[in-house]
Amino acid sequence: MKGIYLVTDQMACTHHSLETIVLMAIQAGVSCVQLREKTADTRTFIQRALALKAILKPARVPLIINDRVDIALAAGADGVHIGQSDMPYPMARRILGPDALIGLSVETWADVVAAQDLDLDYIGVSPVFSTPTKTDTKDPWGLAGLARINDYSRHPLVAIGGLNADNTVPVVTAGADALAVVSAICSARDPFEAAQTLCTHFNHTRTSQGTPS
Amino acid sequence: MKGIYLVTDQMACTHHSLETIVLMAIQAGVSCVQLREKTADTRTFIQRALALKAILKPARVPLIINDRVDIALAAGADGVHIGQSDMPYPMARRILGPDALIGLSVETWADVVAAQDLDLDYIGVSPVFSTPTKTDTKDPWGLAGLARINDYSRHPLVAIGGLNADNTVPVVTAGADALAVVSAICSARDPFEAAQTLCTHFNHTRTSQGTPS
Repeated sequence: MKGIYLVTDQMACTHHSLETIVLMAIQAGVSCVQLREKTADTRTFIQRALALKAILKPARVPLIINDRVDIALAAGADGVHIGQSDMPYPMARRILGPDALIGLSVETWADVVAAQDLDLDYIGVSPVFSTPTKTDTKDPWGLAGLARINDYSRHPLVAIGGLNADNTVPVVTAGADALAVVSAICSARDPFEAAQTLCTHFNHTRTSQGTPS
Repeated sequence: MKGIYLVTDQMACTHHSLETIVLMAIQAGVSCVQLREKTADTRTFIQRALALKAILKPARVPLIINDRVDIALAAGADGVHIGQSDMPYPMARRILGPDALIGLSVETWADVVAAQDLDLDYIGVSPVFSTPTKTDTKDPWGLAGLARINDYSRHPLVAIGGLNADNTVPVVTAGADALAVVSAICSARDPFEAAQTLCTHFNHTRTSQGTPS
């Protein structure tokens, strides 16, 4: 998991439809898309997942489903992102199989330690900064917390929470392998330009660190 | 699917815990239990499903999960009950396999007709009468609607909506193979007695019809 990771939020799609935003984002170089639905019924959630899968599959960009293993199976998604109140990792791995991408949010140091024993594809460092799009999160990790996790964890780190073009450089420098963004792309008037700026900042920072992406 | 079918509702469990109510209900002869959770997070839903599975498995009473195929897989439940806004039947069957019990709610005549082509274990005739425990339902079928479905459908019929000991006889007479109840058991001061009364009424009516259960 590397680069800019788009997490969708229907409420944040202020200027364009979800499908349009996703299409623009992958054209701009976003490397992963997570579909997050907190209020949709199961059938609507599946329909949205299938719509995004149809956009992402030809571009070979993975589709990750937030929380719902059943939606991932129904839509043929590439994996799931689970939080600490979602399905425990071993159950999700058993149901989805060895090839599925599974990411797990870590909100406390105990979560980071527990994640070492799990065969995860990444951990979501959540939140790095405080954010208005998710109100049920714990205290922000900050750049120091992110750097501490980077020193300790064996997993790729996806940073999430309050990320935008202005803080891409310090977050990548602190050790993030990928930056997850919601409103920075979903709420942009020009999602293509917003995603492209994020991708460019990300790539420049990685290159100047000597870790080409 | 035959007999009294308990559908749980955490909000309706006014006098006892969910586990206690389920235990009493199966001791009284209830033949199926559906776990319905509309607000619990995924992890809590799984924990409740596992708790009920531990009670039901030794009694050989099937555990059905409302809507969530992932919870059914995670908890080793016997099947799912899906509504018209849940996962489409073909996807649920593909994911759960041929041995899973799958029931589908029918709320319109078009639903009843469409269900004929599906390899369902039962259809849920919903609602038979108006009910306070579920507010997102369509117009009640009434006894005449239930009888009309019984004449037409090839599937076992689970009647749901406003059922209690007072209307067991006409509902069974109209063609219900099973009666699904929520508050009639969950909200009873004595869930064992409430379930036993329902089972007795059901069995007497079936016997007097010449269809021993």
